[in-house]
Amino acid sequence: MYFGTISVTITRKGNRLWAIWSYPFPLQWCTCHCIEIKIQLGFILLSCALRQVRERLKKDVEQMKLQDPNFRPGLVVLQVTILHSITEVNENSSVHGLIVQLPLDSIHKIDTEKVTNAVAPEKDVDGLTSINAGKLARGDLGDCFLPCTPNGCMELIRQTGLNVFLLCSDEKVILCVVFIIPNSDIVISRSCVPKPIDRLAREVGLLSDEVELYGKTKAKVQLNIIKRLQAQPDGKYVVVTGYAVSSFICCTVLFSLLRIPAFFCFLSTGGAAGGGYSQVIPMEEFNLHLTGDIHAITAANNLVAAAIDARMFHESTQSDKALYNRLVPLSGGQRKFSPIQINRLKKLGIEKTDASTLTEDEITRFARLDIDPSSVTWQRVLDTNDRFLRKITIGQSPTEKGYTREAQFDITVASEIMAVLALTSSMEDMRQRLAKMVVATSRSGQPITTEDLGVSGALTVLMKDAIKPNLMQTLEGNPVFVHAGPFANIAHGNSSILADKIALKLVGPEGFVVTEAGFGADIGMEKFFNIKCRYSGLRPHVVVLVATVRALKMHGGGPIVTAGMPLPKEYIEENLELLENGCSNMKKQIENAQHFGVPVVVAVNAFKTDTEAELDLICSIAKAAGAFDAVRCSHWAEGGAGAVALGQAVQRASEAPSNFKFLYDLELPITDKIRIIAQKIYGADDIELLPEAQHKVELYTKQGFNNLPICMAKTHLSLSHEADKKGVPTGYVLPIRDIRASVGSGFLFPLVGTMPTIPGLPTRPCFYDIDLDPETEQVNGLF
Amino acid sequence: MYFGTISVTITRKGNRLWAIWSYPFPLQWCTCHCIEIKIQLGFILLSCALRQVRERLKKDVEQMKLQDPNFRPGLVVLQVTILHSITEVNENSSVHGLIVQLPLDSIHKIDTEKVTNAVAPEKDVDGLTSINAGKLARGDLGDCFLPCTPNGCMELIRQTGLNVFLLCSDEKVILCVVFIIPNSDIVISRSCVPKPIDRLAREVGLLSDEVELYGKTKAKVQLNIIKRLQAQPDGKYVVVTGYAVSSFICCTVLFSLLRIPAFFCFLSTGGAAGGGYSQVIPMEEFNLHLTGDIHAITAANNLVAAAIDARMFHESTQSDKALYNRLVPLSGGQRKFSPIQINRLKKLGIEKTDASTLTEDEITRFARLDIDPSSVTWQRVLDTNDRFLRKITIGQSPTEKGYTREAQFDITVASEIMAVLALTSSMEDMRQRLAKMVVATSRSGQPITTEDLGVSGALTVLMKDAIKPNLMQTLEGNPVFVHAGPFANIAHGNSSILADKIALKLVGPEGFVVTEAGFGADIGMEKFFNIKCRYSGLRPHVVVLVATVRALKMHGGGPIVTAGMPLPKEYIEENLELLENGCSNMKKQIENAQHFGVPVVVAVNAFKTDTEAELDLICSIAKAAGAFDAVRCSHWAEGGAGAVALGQAVQRASEAPSNFKFLYDLELPITDKIRIIAQKIYGADDIELLPEAQHKVELYTKQGFNNLPICMAKTHLSLSHEADKKGVPTGYVLPIRDIRASVGSGFLFPLVGTMPTIPGLPTRPCFYDIDLDPETEQVNGLF
Repeated sequence: MYFGTISVTITRKGNRLWAIWSYPFPLQWCTCHCIEIKIQLGFILLSCALRQVRERLKKDVEQMKLQDPNFRPGLVVLQVTILHSITEVNENSSVHGLIVQLPLDSIHKIDTEKVTNAVAPEKDVDGLTSINAGKLARGDLGDCFLPCTPNGCMELIRQTGLNVFLLCSDEKVILCVVFIIPNSDIVISRSCVPKPIDRLAREVGLLSDEVELYGKTKAKVQLNIIKRLQAQPDGKYVVVTGYAVSSFICCTVLFSLLRIPAFFCFLSTGGAAGGGYSQVIPMEEFNLHLTGDIHAITAANNLVAAAIDARMFHESTQSDKALYNRLVPLSGGQRKFSPIQINRLKKLGIEKTDASTLTEDEITRFARLDIDPSSVTWQRVLDTNDRFLRKITIGQSPTEKGYTREAQFDITVASEIMAVLALTSSMEDMRQRLAKMVVATSRSGQPITTEDLGVSGALTVLMKDAIKPNLMQTLEGNPVFVHAGPFANIAHGNSSILADKIALKLVGPEGFVVTEAGFGADIGMEKFFNIKCRYSGLRPHVVVLVATVRALKMHGGGPIVTAGMPLPKEYIEENLELLENGCSNMKKQIENAQHFGVPVVVAVNAFKTDTEAELDLICSIAKAAGAFDAVRCSHWAEGGAGAVALGQAVQRASEAPSNFKFLYDLELPITDKIRIIAQKIYGADDIELLPEAQHKVELYTKQGFNNLPICMAKTHLSLSHEADKKGVPTGYVLPIRDIRASVGSGFLFPLVGTMPTIPGLPTRPCFYDIDLDPETEQVNGLF
Repeated sequence: MYFGTISVTITRKGNRLWAIWSYPFPLQWCTCHCIEIKIQLGFILLSCALRQVRERLKKDVEQMKLQDPNFRPGLVVLQVTILHSITEVNENSSVHGLIVQLPLDSIHKIDTEKVTNAVAPEKDVDGLTSINAGKLARGDLGDCFLPCTPNGCMELIRQTGLNVFLLCSDEKVILCVVFIIPNSDIVISRSCVPKPIDRLAREVGLLSDEVELYGKTKAKVQLNIIKRLQAQPDGKYVVVTGYAVSSFICCTVLFSLLRIPAFFCFLSTGGAAGGGYSQVIPMEEFNLHLTGDIHAITAANNLVAAAIDARMFHESTQSDKALYNRLVPLSGGQRKFSPIQINRLKKLGIEKTDASTLTEDEITRFARLDIDPSSVTWQRVLDTNDRFLRKITIGQSPTEKGYTREAQFDITVASEIMAVLALTSSMEDMRQRLAKMVVATSRSGQPITTEDLGVSGALTVLMKDAIKPNLMQTLEGNPVFVHAGPFANIAHGNSSILADKIALKLVGPEGFVVTEAGFGADIGMEKFFNIKCRYSGLRPHVVVLVATVRALKMHGGGPIVTAGMPLPKEYIEENLELLENGCSNMKKQIENAQHFGVPVVVAVNAFKTDTEAELDLICSIAKAAGAFDAVRCSHWAEGGAGAVALGQAVQRASEAPSNFKFLYDLELPITDKIRIIAQKIYGADDIELLPEAQHKVELYTKQGFNNLPICMAKTHLSLSHEADKKGVPTGYVLPIRDIRASVGSGFLFPLVGTMPTIPGLPTRPCFYDIDLDPETEQVNGLF
């Protein structure tokens, strides 16, 4: 539980209210609308426990008594508290003005002048505020002022219309707003009233025509902004990677970029919006349907799947001529190719557009895709943890005439269309990528694409809104793009190139854009550089490698952590030896980042059980290993204020010389590219291609896909392929079981081990706790 | 192709433009924003063929010459055209003002005064417009004025910034805007610039806090509006049913209600937005993701499916005690039930809330649902026409340890959750309905619900936005709610109760709300009355029964119509005998409507091949059969203007006495209720329950579901169960194959024959023609 007494004043300017806190609090409520503050306060008060307030106040009183034996509680507590608060506000550069409202009621006997004069002149918004003070004083508030119950508080807000909440303890302290915030991400998320998203959009420089609102907290940004800001120089580009990424992202930055959360249907692991005071809000929106991008991908992906099986079925039951007559039907006495069909003709080398002139052989080649059913690599997807769909047999209804086939469902983020969304650079480019996705191989060894199936245009139509990045905000009102979330297992696990590009233009040359590379540094960062940067043409200025004492101790040989079980003592007590052992892994990750020639800042994410010595140890080892800097941060607990040092380090690093380079040339043979990653990044001695992988190397080389970058599908729990090998494993050979091609998104993905592609529900899924309050429409139990 | 020369003037008032057409055109562009008109005109012009314009003008000139041998082309054509246009505008009550802009160029020698004086005083917006005239005249427009090519037109718009397009033929006619509109629904849909949806929302009386925008053309309406308008008397409630419903709906009404289209993924049958000049716009939005309601249903439905199989799996591998320990885990040394679990305890008659006090027997009863796998009636769904999912085997991955099962996918609109959405009356009611959906039977014969699975709260959360009706508009700018689209095959096929209720409040006592009952009158209308009206408590004032010459001829014994084949001559030539035979079916449907005591207006939807005699015949037979009135309408071709007579008839009918009654009492035994529908509505002699149906009657009676209304799952192509029996079949017994229960939505559905629940893709699906123009983001080929 976090709680504290916080002095607050709220005043009306025009039809806006200004709220000023005396405590530095990770909320930005300035210029909130009246109604929002009402909701906000109403909500918090309902969960507040007055007993705790009183106890806190009693403690204050006791401290005062220790300092001054003549101290009389009540009156002076107030004055001292106010003076203390004013001093803090004076020193807090993020508070731009202060209005003090004092009770007129004489029984309080406050030295008004003393209080007033305490306000620093530059913070004194409107001289003194005795004008409004009366309204806040006891007289105006009537009976509901004392005593205060949560219901009484609500009533008070309703009656006064002042939108400020006054809690009164037995000591009759007024002018204090008490926040009692249980330490739960969803409550913190809700405790902050988001800015209206159209206002945030204006603040970051978007024109109203460039923004499509989705309710009041989400918006899509149109791609034409890129053209408008063409001439604008880019901002600084920072990639964050490591062990616990999203928390950091949400608080330090001018513009940050996150991936869409997967598994929104109530996994037991919670969401991806960040945590503590580092969150994207509103959390419910972030983790539920958002703006429907995942749904669009599900629909598009499954249209391809349906088209594949339907096509195989129709081909198996029709002659070439019949197929052709149906594919290019007579209309007004003529047969006419659709543009998509002309694309297929071109691919086949048939330079004809008149459907009546095809030879019999050309008709066969055009009409019959001749897909080898065993070669189909395209799977159906759902955004549900439905383990019973991991392996299924389809086509068992009599209407499918016995053409059954083994198939599977993956989760939606594993769809190649999600990877396309993340890597595309424009609508036109997406159209092309969605056309060249390879779904199977023909019996003669030709790759069969979505364009061959005729479905590429329809896919583009289904994805036309999903391509626009989603604008949201952090708890502190900073802009965040939440866009694309390709599976980090079999895809590259990075947010979208388009969102990065737009953000870099919006922040301009003085600004910073922080983007997330999912999973560990050996996976997410390597793919960020070799795949995402290659396609985007963007070059990052700084790598932020996030480290935690706990994760490094695990790499140092600490015991296994089991969810739901108490944490072993190694992780909650100081253990420098374990930590130092584990730092070998961090050193390797720093080295990995240096392969790409970009300065590395290590951010040590501090937990309350971490000791000074432990935190110091990480920092000194990191610096010795060549990190540009290593700093502690505490944004989870403190919001942006907890990451100021990190921000400064990143700023300095961004001005340091950098010499970006890729790890491998695309022109190298597939096997060489895989070997380079395995040796340089994972520290393997060599790689071993199992027969299926060997076959794919030959097939893809023959099909001309050998120049694509490599997207390793490997566990993120170890640098090696074995999750339990911690630290820096050496002396091993990395086995490559199989290789797949994502030709539309533009990479080959070697499979190291077996990748689960659809999770299951546990015996007691989270949904047991989830419900909607039908009255308030508030979502309970989501996190 | 539709084309015509249309005089138009556009003027700026403040930062808005007023556009006035001389021809009555089913578009309302008044007060459009500048930018929208630009896009609008730009689009149409790109597809215009100048040749046709010239030909039309030549024809006009020739006609003039016939009338006046001294006629000189060019000059006078212009003057006559303008005068003619002005006269039309004067008489058109939907045009509120007219501004005439004339060329200053003297070579045209127009009698300016004559033209000016022709404008009726009440339409003369700002005296005369010679002020702006210069800008439109030749001199200002420079070289691009003559000759005009489509590119030139675009350039002209760009250069002048006037947002009016001037086409100039060889005859130098100016002031004419030429529209050439191919007769395609999507082009008509696009040719109309929709009002900004927030403006429409204001126009219908919604407060801005009650509206959630989804882009610029769609919005969701919050349910709290019902409370605000509680005291407001309802409007008149009109239900439309028959053979071709949606076209009518879109044009005649103050407020109309449509179902969400299913199969958005590119079926070959097109969308559900209406057609011709009776459409909901923008059509692409309507037929693509809309606001994501169908996606939410897919996600919610499949979460239930995953929960069922996961639960059966976990129960099969765990002891009662282990199950209990996982379902009610230790947390801080205590086991605590979630509220959903307490609901299950109550259902079991266990009045305990302390998890430590359950007896062993109670633990078993609580923890083990003991679902009989063969009894699972809940299916997975997708909004894709994927025929290979009609029958599948799931659970074949080794991780599921051999617990395979036969299953199937349905299309999303067939989900019970869709029916719940359509029939619910509030958030609280939806929560309850989503909790009592029966998904299977336990081995001891108990119904297993979504609440037993613990998933009911999560479903409500997933559906919390879908419950809000979607506001869109017709081509003529009338408001439309598009909300819920339960499958008319196995559910009740009507739009949502909530949307109807809100609309009735919004239009107020003088207004009319038109709602659609899907499928034929014997299905849709019967379900509308017996199910929807029963749950909503609403009573309709008028039934509109839509009839077409073509459909009635088919019922009269006309030849079979095959899609893609030319229409047999019986349907395009006058055939009064065939038509009169077929009218027996219409008479029966009028009688069916009369069972419910509500006046019937027959709307004869006229096609251009219908003869006067045919249309008259239908009207006279309808009136003789007891219809309140029978009128022709032509809204497809003419928009609202084509349905004025119908509107007037409906208005008169709404004032006629009505005596609403249900067809059957809920208290009757299941079999009796089915028999009443079969005999009174379908004209069957009796019903026959096959063994499975007989078993279900007993099961559902035992389980206490016997008091639910009946939702027949029967073909809509015949009054009987055999699609090819046209007219009014008699002397048959209706076979009931099986009965299912939708306990959450609240009905039993007897199956008459086999219902396909997921369609397939043809050899050449529509998607071959669909594509997105990456530059304009325009969707091509969708319809």
